[in-house]
Amino acid sequence: MLIIGERINASRKRIAPAVENKDAGFIIQEAGMQIEAGADYVDANAGTFGPEREPGLLCWLVETIQGSHECRISLDSPNPAAIEPALKLHKGKALINSISLETARFDSLLPLVRDHGTDVIAMCADDQGMPTDLENKLRIAGTLVEKLTAAGVPLENIYVDPLVYPISTDHSYGTVVLQAIERIMTGFPGVHTSIGLSNVSYGLPFRFQLNQMFMVLAMGRGLDAAILDPTDKRLMANVITASALLGRDEFCMKYLEAHQGGKLDLE
Amino acid sequence: MLIIGERINASRKRIAPAVENKDAGFIIQEAGMQIEAGADYVDANAGTFGPEREPGLLCWLVETIQGSHECRISLDSPNPAAIEPALKLHKGKALINSISLETARFDSLLPLVRDHGTDVIAMCADDQGMPTDLENKLRIAGTLVEKLTAAGVPLENIYVDPLVYPISTDHSYGTVVLQAIERIMTGFPGVHTSIGLSNVSYGLPFRFQLNQMFMVLAMGRGLDAAILDPTDKRLMANVITASALLGRDEFCMKYLEAHQGGKLDLE
Repeated sequence: MLIIGERINASRKRIAPAVENKDAGFIIQEAGMQIEAGADYVDANAGTFGPEREPGLLCWLVETIQGSHECRISLDSPNPAAIEPALKLHKGKALINSISLETARFDSLLPLVRDHGTDVIAMCADDQGMPTDLENKLRIAGTLVEKLTAAGVPLENIYVDPLVYPISTDHSYGTVVLQAIERIMTGFPGVHTSIGLSNVSYGLPFRFQLNQMFMVLAMGRGLDAAILDPTDKRLMANVITASALLGRDEFCMKYLEAHQGGKLDLE
Repeated sequence: MLIIGERINASRKRIAPAVENKDAGFIIQEAGMQIEAGADYVDANAGTFGPEREPGLLCWLVETIQGSHECRISLDSPNPAAIEPALKLHKGKALINSISLETARFDSLLPLVRDHGTDVIAMCADDQGMPTDLENKLRIAGTLVEKLTAAGVPLENIYVDPLVYPISTDHSYGTVVLQAIERIMTGFPGVHTSIGLSNVSYGLPFRFQLNQMFMVLAMGRGLDAAILDPTDKRLMANVITASALLGRDEFCMKYLEAHQGGKLDLE
């Protein structure tokens, strides 16, 4: 399971001033907490500062985080003018978060994904919008995989995001995404799926509980990556437990390690 | 989701003396706790006392529990000599737990299931044993459904139990059962599936956590009944949350009610 730590996003109240004021200590701490909690990628998003300031701030985030931690960064922007300079500074294999089937976005980000050999999140959206139904999600997923691989992007670098919508809006939205995950994973063996987990609980109370359970349900359908807050200890305990139950943890070694490390018994 | 409360089982340390000494107060309290926590059926098992004493003690359990609570009992025995008199005392629709494809068991319990119109758990076991592989579980499930319905048992009274084995024994046992649940539910629309939840975690530490997560994974595959301890508050919170995420809780009403009743926030 690939965990993308979502916390360093300038749309969040405590992150915005830290990015704006280049508070390196705070950002380094936020990155460290997430890595310690199990993040494979640290997401970095400076999109709220607008197209003029975003490139500089995204570059500063990459340099600041990688200056103190050995980790990979998820460059969270649709803006090639921000991603390209950040990629040049980035050490190791980056993740571009995200491409989609929107023509302008696809055409401008594809060369960066391909030429830098990055991982890429491929959102199920196109010029007509962001579909909520299974058929259109699957249609876009198929076209994305086809076009990306035809352009030379290895299948194993692609993380299809079927787009999670709040179940408070329509009570079928959860099952539609679960079905999409399974169909994408079985339809394109070797591809990955990723979700922005917390969208599912928007508009409902006690969102942690919904996020924690949806993660398990999505893993049950084959999900192998997610953007989430890894400092939610119960969520991460659930990921470890579900991995064991789903036969992805031989001899339950990681489960037993987590138990010995006090990471399961959280009451 | 049909919840069968498992606690009144004479193989449990605190239950055995209460049954033996006919401690009605204790049994009534155990039943009440489970009903309060959401049990639809209260399981009653006096099997450890042997074939001579079991019928009398099972009858005493039925009379004691139904004398104080409006509830239905899961008559947990393979022994028709215990089930038949208990059924005569039972008010309302009982559950027979359980029939299987073992010839003697099937032939002796079928008339009771059919003539009393009970619900019935149908275990995926036959004269060759209790298979751990998907193919044989499905073969037995199919034959059970076929033979029971041919004998006049309505499909909606049948709860197929694919038999959960500990993942500590073989790390594929979890996924085999999850696949079996989905195949049985889609193969026989209208039938139910039920599992003895806690078997999955046998031999591993912090079993609550494994049980809680496996319940969610099984619900994700269509499970609609389980034998479990409903006084595990987090387990029941997970059932309510998973129901909402799986589109089985219109407008998330039960989730919102549970939240307002303080049943979700358990830290």
